[in-house]
Amino acid sequence: MTKSHVDLIISGDYLLPDATQQSLVKKGAVAINGDTITALGESVTILERYSTDRHLHTDYGLIMPGLINTHTHAAMACFRGLADDLPLMTWLEEYIFPVEASRTPDMVYQSTLLSIAEMIKSGTTSFCDMYLFSKEVARATAESGMRALIGEVLYDFPSPCYGDLESGFSYVDDLFEQYRGHPLISITTTPHSVYTCAPELLTRLGRVAEDHGSLYSIHLSENLAEVNTCKDRFGCGPVEHLHKLGLLGPQTLAAHCVALSDKDIDTLAEQQVKVSHCQESNMKLASGTAPVVRMLQAGITVSIGTDGAASNNDVDMFGEMHTVAKIHKVDRMDATAMNAEQTLYAATLGGARALGHQNKTGSLAVGKKADMIVLNMNQPHLTPLYNIPSHLVYAARGADVLHSVINGRILMENRILQTLDENKILDQMCIMGQSIAEHGKD
Amino acid sequence: MTKSHVDLIISGDYLLPDATQQSLVKKGAVAINGDTITALGESVTILERYSTDRHLHTDYGLIMPGLINTHTHAAMACFRGLADDLPLMTWLEEYIFPVEASRTPDMVYQSTLLSIAEMIKSGTTSFCDMYLFSKEVARATAESGMRALIGEVLYDFPSPCYGDLESGFSYVDDLFEQYRGHPLISITTTPHSVYTCAPELLTRLGRVAEDHGSLYSIHLSENLAEVNTCKDRFGCGPVEHLHKLGLLGPQTLAAHCVALSDKDIDTLAEQQVKVSHCQESNMKLASGTAPVVRMLQAGITVSIGTDGAASNNDVDMFGEMHTVAKIHKVDRMDATAMNAEQTLYAATLGGARALGHQNKTGSLAVGKKADMIVLNMNQPHLTPLYNIPSHLVYAARGADVLHSVINGRILMENRILQTLDENKILDQMCIMGQSIAEHGKD
Repeated sequence: MTKSHVDLIISGDYLLPDATQQSLVKKGAVAINGDTITALGESVTILERYSTDRHLHTDYGLIMPGLINTHTHAAMACFRGLADDLPLMTWLEEYIFPVEASRTPDMVYQSTLLSIAEMIKSGTTSFCDMYLFSKEVARATAESGMRALIGEVLYDFPSPCYGDLESGFSYVDDLFEQYRGHPLISITTTPHSVYTCAPELLTRLGRVAEDHGSLYSIHLSENLAEVNTCKDRFGCGPVEHLHKLGLLGPQTLAAHCVALSDKDIDTLAEQQVKVSHCQESNMKLASGTAPVVRMLQAGITVSIGTDGAASNNDVDMFGEMHTVAKIHKVDRMDATAMNAEQTLYAATLGGARALGHQNKTGSLAVGKKADMIVLNMNQPHLTPLYNIPSHLVYAARGADVLHSVINGRILMENRILQTLDENKILDQMCIMGQSIAEHGKD
Repeated sequence: MTKSHVDLIISGDYLLPDATQQSLVKKGAVAINGDTITALGESVTILERYSTDRHLHTDYGLIMPGLINTHTHAAMACFRGLADDLPLMTWLEEYIFPVEASRTPDMVYQSTLLSIAEMIKSGTTSFCDMYLFSKEVARATAESGMRALIGEVLYDFPSPCYGDLESGFSYVDDLFEQYRGHPLISITTTPHSVYTCAPELLTRLGRVAEDHGSLYSIHLSENLAEVNTCKDRFGCGPVEHLHKLGLLGPQTLAAHCVALSDKDIDTLAEQQVKVSHCQESNMKLASGTAPVVRMLQAGITVSIGTDGAASNNDVDMFGEMHTVAKIHKVDRMDATAMNAEQTLYAATLGGARALGHQNKTGSLAVGKKADMIVLNMNQPHLTPLYNIPSHLVYAARGADVLHSVINGRILMENRILQTLDENKILDQMCIMGQSIAEHGKD
């Protein structure tokens, strides 16, 4: 039999195409052509059918879908650990907003590179970002070869990036124009929140999203203070407020969703809104625990986000899964809540669905984009091995990821980044950190 | 000036002698003679005053006290991921007790080696263990060179280790005899709990502890079911029950302490009982969240334990700190609760105090035992660096630990274990895991 040639074959002792133990293939392989998965299954079969010049095999390696981080602010990596153990509003108003006021495009570019380095090294293959100077976020992302949805955050007050709001809308138009047809980067509309954006801003951005068929990503019901502010101003909570404005729908990606009423959950479910659950940030800022189990029961697509490194303080999706699987058990006093497979689903195909990428990413299947990671399972904390989703959620860490393939391209091999100069990024961020620390002392 | 000779000098870009940012020494070093810290401070000073044949320097390295895990069951590592997402009693009675019934000394020995490998690789330098076949636990520990307190768990029903209870007491006597004067291993008395030990057993073990001046370590008020069982049997909760039996005191190490009344907290504080807080296990088994903030306010020494890998599912104290610092914020809806320094203290000097080792371990000081770890801080998730306790609690992971020194001996260098054969341990545990999995199918 003549073998077909493919660009890349990834093989290892274990292949987990989706979030279930049932999907496990022992001694598995994935054949990749260009950006796409051509075939997958038992190594012996794949290697019989396909030849390649590039075969990356890992003894004890587990091949799995890359993790999808549906809510982050990559460029906040430079504020990691700058201000901790503070409530959300104090943290934002006294620490983050002041340092952000003096941000420059270069700071955003460099910090995004840092966060992307961390994301790749901890198993994330795509992310959804919301921040200032997002052209710089997109530039860094494009250089890295990661997959991302990126939006320029708009709010009522002047932005250090674009100045007045009218210029903000032009900036967003530019972004859509610049990345039209880009293989890895999509642009989203990203109003900050109902408490920082007037109804006119929210609805106008909604029209922009509609025009471009883009996601509409927003912080929603992050804590009780937000709900109370919204009730004071608009006579209803944030979910109802957005709903009345006609802004809830299948393209809406709502981050946080902590302070929800039962009615809010029903509304989100009816409108097919997607949720990004950011538990570690919600814990660190004492925002609360999102009612994830009830949201899942209502049929809502729940994905996982790390939020920015300033309120987490990492962007490690393995750590986030670990927390998500455990917090809902104790929150509901039910040890069966958020089991390992549900949690892994939220971080993979759940994430893909939240981003509208379910036909592209989130699981390994023929015809999907080749976004995958390989973990080293031959380690004390992953031994013995009875159930892979259990290990991935309860024991694995970002540092267990050896290789990362995004869109068919190897972005990390044996923990060495292939498209980014890690040492250069770290050196530059040390210098930036010193400058931020000194600025903070003024 | 003539230099004094020391056995070992450890140096790095950062030296954090205790759990506070204030203690930070930039470009620091520790001089070690035998098992003891001779001097510490700025590298330039230490290297001026001391010569050595063995100088382990790490660029970007952070030298800090090793972490102290005050409650674990090391030999349960072989059950990691065997049964998840189940309530405590179902998990114990339907999964753990049945597989434990057929445990052999060799399984305990091998599993302990695995857990010790994981502990060293994630920064723990001493631990307090409670399990069956504890002579095997002690043998594995002695071989590894780790510091530990080890106890044979006693309960009313026959043990697969010692058989009837009378033999259990002889087994404990043997243990005390065997390890008298051991430089690294101390023996503790370890009744399982108030719901598995009759009052006579509890008090008799109390006398054994008194005779040997040992710790009295017990699971206490782990969940509401335990409290209710105790109330049904003895007319009061577990804390009051032990108190009435005269078994609470400064040598009592109570693990879990989740379901506590205000009066219980007062009693624990008055009796100077030490607490081992095992939050991840308490979350995974939906036991609840221990009132740690209130315990600390009452003046109780709170330390941190991982519990066994079967209910965690790792023994990574960095992960545990991460969870501890965050859960109490959301549990109390107070972002200032359990700040980074408090959490780091609980995992270092708090742990040492819980084990009665405060003059030996838990911080780096002249005359203390040389138990320390060195982390690689030159990584994306630890950059930039504003505050070291923040990074250690909110961003660092076990895999960041490069070197481990225990009792003046290098047990890990550049992540290679020096006293244990990691690959051999992993191979043997894979085989054991297959056998346990097959046994589970019977």
